[in-house]
Amino acid sequence: MIIAVDAAGGDYAPGEIIKGVVQAVEESDVEIALVGKKSLIHVTAARQIKNNSRISIIEASQVIEAEEHPMRAVMSKPDSSIVVGINLLKEGKAQAFVSAGNTGALFGAAFLKLGLIEGIERPAICAILDITGSTPVLLIDAGANADCKPHFLVQFAEMGNAFAKRVIGLDTPRVGLLSNGSEDGKGNRLVVDSHELLKNANLNFVGNIEANDLPKGKVDVVVTDGFTGNVVLKTLEGLGEAVQNFKHLWRDVSKAGHVHGSALLGSVEIDSWARKLDFREYGGACLLGVSGNVIKAHGRSRANAIKNAIILARQTAEGNIYAIIKKEEQNEQHNSSN
Amino acid sequence: MIIAVDAAGGDYAPGEIIKGVVQAVEESDVEIALVGKKSLIHVTAARQIKNNSRISIIEASQVIEAEEHPMRAVMSKPDSSIVVGINLLKEGKAQAFVSAGNTGALFGAAFLKLGLIEGIERPAICAILDITGSTPVLLIDAGANADCKPHFLVQFAEMGNAFAKRVIGLDTPRVGLLSNGSEDGKGNRLVVDSHELLKNANLNFVGNIEANDLPKGKVDVVVTDGFTGNVVLKTLEGLGEAVQNFKHLWRDVSKAGHVHGSALLGSVEIDSWARKLDFREYGGACLLGVSGNVIKAHGRSRANAIKNAIILARQTAEGNIYAIIKKEEQNEQHNSSN
Repeated sequence: MIIAVDAAGGDYAPGEIIKGVVQAVEESDVEIALVGKKSLIHVTAARQIKNNSRISIIEASQVIEAEEHPMRAVMSKPDSSIVVGINLLKEGKAQAFVSAGNTGALFGAAFLKLGLIEGIERPAICAILDITGSTPVLLIDAGANADCKPHFLVQFAEMGNAFAKRVIGLDTPRVGLLSNGSEDGKGNRLVVDSHELLKNANLNFVGNIEANDLPKGKVDVVVTDGFTGNVVLKTLEGLGEAVQNFKHLWRDVSKAGHVHGSALLGSVEIDSWARKLDFREYGGACLLGVSGNVIKAHGRSRANAIKNAIILARQTAEGNIYAIIKKEEQNEQHNSSN
Repeated sequence: MIIAVDAAGGDYAPGEIIKGVVQAVEESDVEIALVGKKSLIHVTAARQIKNNSRISIIEASQVIEAEEHPMRAVMSKPDSSIVVGINLLKEGKAQAFVSAGNTGALFGAAFLKLGLIEGIERPAICAILDITGSTPVLLIDAGANADCKPHFLVQFAEMGNAFAKRVIGLDTPRVGLLSNGSEDGKGNRLVVDSHELLKNANLNFVGNIEANDLPKGKVDVVVTDGFTGNVVLKTLEGLGEAVQNFKHLWRDVSKAGHVHGSALLGSVEIDSWARKLDFREYGGACLLGVSGNVIKAHGRSRANAIKNAIILARQTAEGNIYAIIKKEEQNEQHNSSN
């Protein structure tokens, strides 16, 4: 299995990207196609890559910067690492593509080049939240569609359901609808209308859930519009940063006193927990609904986050997630037309 | 100044409510009108109250339970502690009312009995977030209106602005609009349209802010619709609980080892920080836009949270917040008609 990785995207490219790639190759059997400027990659990591038969380099002479207008950049930079990486998927030369680069450009290129799966009207971002460190919760849509119609949310639920089955490995994922109250009938107009449709979908729909239930493992898939999903994700991220800042402050206090091993253990554990709230550490997010496996790692990803994103990409490609979504859609249409 | 307090509302009523009242009277010069069943209050706390000339009891024979339908309960229970408390405000016998009871019933009764301030079309919940422990951030609307129109958000901004000036004591509060991106033009339809109106309002409007900026002190007032506001609040609350659970786990680990004073200090500090994310600890939220000072404490409030809510009620009444909102509204209308 070949995973294409954008060597040029993200705050710490290419150094940390390459380190993450090397880690992923050491820890699993993936083959990597590093997409970027060959000359720059060689200068950065000639030694690490040279003797590794499972890492190849695909030339991409252009870079889409983080602050560029996504669609204009995709159109005007056909040899950018993002466009070249997506083209590898389209041509079947890679089974998944991981990028920590410009989110809008990545998803825009995926949408334009790969197209949507039949029956899906909007692609959606599926973020994997690992708040408690036990079972992950999938949040979909985590930011692709600010304005949604009720039947979009049903499609998001179906895609999240397929992902939970095929990639996370759950038999009957519990699907919840994010609302401002758990009772039926609670919510804004979009949620109330979506609730009715979800009740009649072929899903294990458990009803509305509130945001304070996200860490409690009550559901496996949380469906919401992309505006609200983005707000949830960024609230978690902001708080994760605040916990880490607090922890560092506290570590400074501790250093001035006498702290034994178990207290330091606690400190490290709180840190590792807080980091899971942050895209920087957890494995990334998938764009679902397009005909290809596209994984977005956070722009601030360091090596470990890139490695995790590559592992997620591998699982996603193995799960053959977009083929499954298409099939489930068709089954559903078949069933409902009977 | 007389603050009416609902003795019957909340998970720990009346015991913790009365303890909080006694603490507030000890720490400040407020007078309290405890609203509830006299017989029950006397059984619970005869000794604590008997000799205190600043605590009086106002009989209310009925109780609205947490799970009752708000409006039906308000209509059918005219002698409930919530309705009696709101009536004290209406009759000028108290300057503010604090309740940890049924949120919908409290706000419904306030809306019905006190009416809206002239120029305000929807009342909104203003929650005081104290994430970093430095400057609080006001979140408005934190849950009253699931579906909003752009001009509602402008009214929320104006009310939040008045609250930040009069209660928090800021000269020129920075007002931000919650969005999924900081650039102008980012957001869902409601946000994009509201942004245009806010730019032209008589406010120190600093533009869009993202949810991960909430702990960073970039703005003093965050404006959003009540659905999104509720999601933010509950995400913070859920995460606060998760931090506390994690901390307890860690404390158990620590107990098995050797931990010195400074580490325990760290533990207590993390706990106190995490609790601030939770309504149980922070002082409550105000209903703005009605003609009276109404403070909602969390249903799980214990004594300390009730005391904080009473202090907030006192500040709100001293700020004469609803008269100010009315005046600022009229000034604005006056200015724009010139």
